[in-house]
Amino acid sequence: MDRNDAEIELSRLRDAIDRVDEVIVRLLNQRAKYAIEIGEVKPILGLPVYAPEREKQVLQHVERTSNGPLDPATMRRLFERIIDESRRVERESGVGSRSG
Amino acid sequence: MDRNDAEIELSRLRDAIDRVDEVIVRLLNQRAKYAIEIGEVKPILGLPVYAPEREKQVLQHVERTSNGPLDPATMRRLFERIIDESRRVERESGVGSRSG
Repeated sequence: MDRNDAEIELSRLRDAIDRVDEVIVRLLNQRAKYAIEIGEVKPILGLPVYAPEREKQVLQHVERTSNGPLDPATMRRLFERIIDESRRVERESGVGSRSG
Repeated sequence: MDRNDAEIELSRLRDAIDRVDEVIVRLLNQRAKYAIEIGEVKPILGLPVYAPEREKQVLQHVERTSNGPLDPATMRRLFERIIDESRRVERESGVGSRSG
């Protein structure tokens, strides 16, 4: 690959990443919407926001789903952050926060 | 909503999150593949792995793209982690690491 081809390829790859990022953003927001809805349902069942068993299950699910190139530990780290933020919006959804 | 409906709804929402997570996992891996390809192209251009201007642009792009419920600061935090992991796989892609 010569310099010119490499420049075109770099630009193409960065555009591709931007397109992927747009979908990830949409899905993270969709996930947050579901978390907010969960925050509204849990008080009816007397359940707390923090559900360690469920969080463990979510992490196992993403580790099983992933087939690389990101290794399972990396995927787990990313989803630990996603779960943290989901828990926060669930808590802040108001109804959830009344459940203690 | 009574208890029974709430239990069904919670189960439905958790399934929906699992489906969203499967797609997020796929997209994070796709993003990593592009990052690895970038790690192969940059040495041809004499570019280092760390590209602060591009990383700033990626963060601005996701902040602009997001329309909530996650606020821009949250989205930025999540993507800072995603970029960190992408930079790591790009660096570890071997060819990239030879570029210094």
